[in-house]
Amino acid sequence: MAERHKLGEFEIIARFFRPLAEGKAGALGLTDDAALIDVAEGHTLVATTDTMVAGVHFFEDAAADLVARKLLRVNLSDLAAMGARPVTYLLSVVLPGDFREPWLADFCEGLRADQERFGVYLSGGNTCATSGPATLTVTAFGEVPKGTALLRSGAKSGDAILVSGTIGDGALGLRALRGEIKPEDGESRDFLVSRYHLPEPRIALAMALRGLAHAAIDISDGLVADLGHICETSGVGAVVEWPHVPLSPAARRVLAADATLREAVLGGGDDYELLFTAAPGTLDAVAAAGKACGVAVTAIGQIRGTAGVTIVDSKGSEIAVASAGYRHF
Amino acid sequence: MAERHKLGEFEIIARFFRPLAEGKAGALGLTDDAALIDVAEGHTLVATTDTMVAGVHFFEDAAADLVARKLLRVNLSDLAAMGARPVTYLLSVVLPGDFREPWLADFCEGLRADQERFGVYLSGGNTCATSGPATLTVTAFGEVPKGTALLRSGAKSGDAILVSGTIGDGALGLRALRGEIKPEDGESRDFLVSRYHLPEPRIALAMALRGLAHAAIDISDGLVADLGHICETSGVGAVVEWPHVPLSPAARRVLAADATLREAVLGGGDDYELLFTAAPGTLDAVAAAGKACGVAVTAIGQIRGTAGVTIVDSKGSEIAVASAGYRHF
Repeated sequence: MAERHKLGEFEIIARFFRPLAEGKAGALGLTDDAALIDVAEGHTLVATTDTMVAGVHFFEDAAADLVARKLLRVNLSDLAAMGARPVTYLLSVVLPGDFREPWLADFCEGLRADQERFGVYLSGGNTCATSGPATLTVTAFGEVPKGTALLRSGAKSGDAILVSGTIGDGALGLRALRGEIKPEDGESRDFLVSRYHLPEPRIALAMALRGLAHAAIDISDGLVADLGHICETSGVGAVVEWPHVPLSPAARRVLAADATLREAVLGGGDDYELLFTAAPGTLDAVAAAGKACGVAVTAIGQIRGTAGVTIVDSKGSEIAVASAGYRHF
Repeated sequence: MAERHKLGEFEIIARFFRPLAEGKAGALGLTDDAALIDVAEGHTLVATTDTMVAGVHFFEDAAADLVARKLLRVNLSDLAAMGARPVTYLLSVVLPGDFREPWLADFCEGLRADQERFGVYLSGGNTCATSGPATLTVTAFGEVPKGTALLRSGAKSGDAILVSGTIGDGALGLRALRGEIKPEDGESRDFLVSRYHLPEPRIALAMALRGLAHAAIDISDGLVADLGHICETSGVGAVVEWPHVPLSPAARRVLAADATLREAVLGGGDDYELLFTAAPGTLDAVAAAGKACGVAVTAIGQIRGTAGVTIVDSKGSEIAVASAGYRHF
């Protein structure tokens, strides 16, 4: 039922994907039915999967290498949120019958670049055709010493709430790409857009937080929504002080021009920063972990009460945030 | 960019998917960023992923529970081809914005039935919307004692070539569904169609073949194509004797009416039987393994030469088989 392409499935695997598995015994040259993945003794495997659909998760005309790198990074960010060290990944590539070969070459070049960057490799996967938009799925694997995985469920009353990096850049970058906001200086625009395209999974920091953080998540749905996930799973509430939320200089400039964008910063997704809680007595150790990894770590609030996320301004007044993450359906 | 549906992503997970993960600690109630999977000491994790697209891999109006069960089974069949014991799976569900809830309920009911049947559970996944057809990806995990995985690459000159079950039922069932063939008796049609819809992953047999089979694969692309994969990976050739290829009574009846369908039997896919090679001196042990698992095992030819798959008839004359598996592009 699928359209014919001049390259067959096996040629596609041989030409584009096999080089990404080179030299890795368990990948079996992508010639077998499944991949073999050895998990280090005393460790638990951590597995996550994320899909990106053209027209939903990325613009149809987006650069293929950036699409590939973001796809890999959002998966690595999920591993980071568990405190796992990334190891390898599987790839399911579902493409329109008339896909262009250069697109696939660029896509694989993006994977290659980030494989090198993050020390992972392709273990296996699947390639097939669709009558719909390109649909790309990565399943990523990491490992964590048994009993040390960071979960969403461990937040305790009195914990400090912390984030890595800066918040809101991804959401503002997406709005800039859509033309909804027009940062006055090109530098700010470029920075925000690149933060949207190329999130930075906080792997080293997350590994350093094993045994320190009580609960952790990566911010994909937005600060408020993802803090809400921690609260629900942990059975607690949270108060965030807006003045403490760390902003990039570019986000500050955009907010100075239009203060209503505060809601996009708090409610928008795509930051892929770590959001975590820790006991107040351990904040020096947390700060040291951030310093050792070269990642800013900022306390933004406190776990308090039994449910709900409240954002307050410098006077302690509540800020309403309507958006609670992207709704797919 | 996606259409709205009355059920949000989180409601979908809570209502439909969470019950499939119930009672499994590592699935974390599907509320965390990734799944935790413990691999037994001395074992290697085996991981495979397969995608099914509506209109490509299944008819748009196919029963959702059958789609789910086939999706799970083709993945379990890949694990079986490695000799692995299945453990758990991740699921990526990409649905049109206007999908029907009863469809999803049926889909999950199919998963539930086969989870019970095969002793696996849902560990995690991903749900999102698409403007295209439903696109469903399972990533399945199994484990195998280190060093005992069945690979495609171990076939040796002089090995017997064997298959489990019967060959060609899946391809004939698909043709019956498409109306291309009309088996005279309803019973034959039902049997062939059910073989297409519900392949039987040969898990127990494959596990029993650890240390016995030199090379193994599951027949998804077709007997000739998949034997070709073993030959390429092992650097050998193969001769199959058509009269020895095991056929179901239904397939025999269909072939009696139209002998040209032999090509569909040899070249068509979707059987998901095990195809493997073993040293001639071990065939008694192989037969005993089949008997212990209640699965017919039939020797159909011999590994011979350095390349290529040859099919011969009862007089030793070569039979040409044009089809070499489904071409996606």
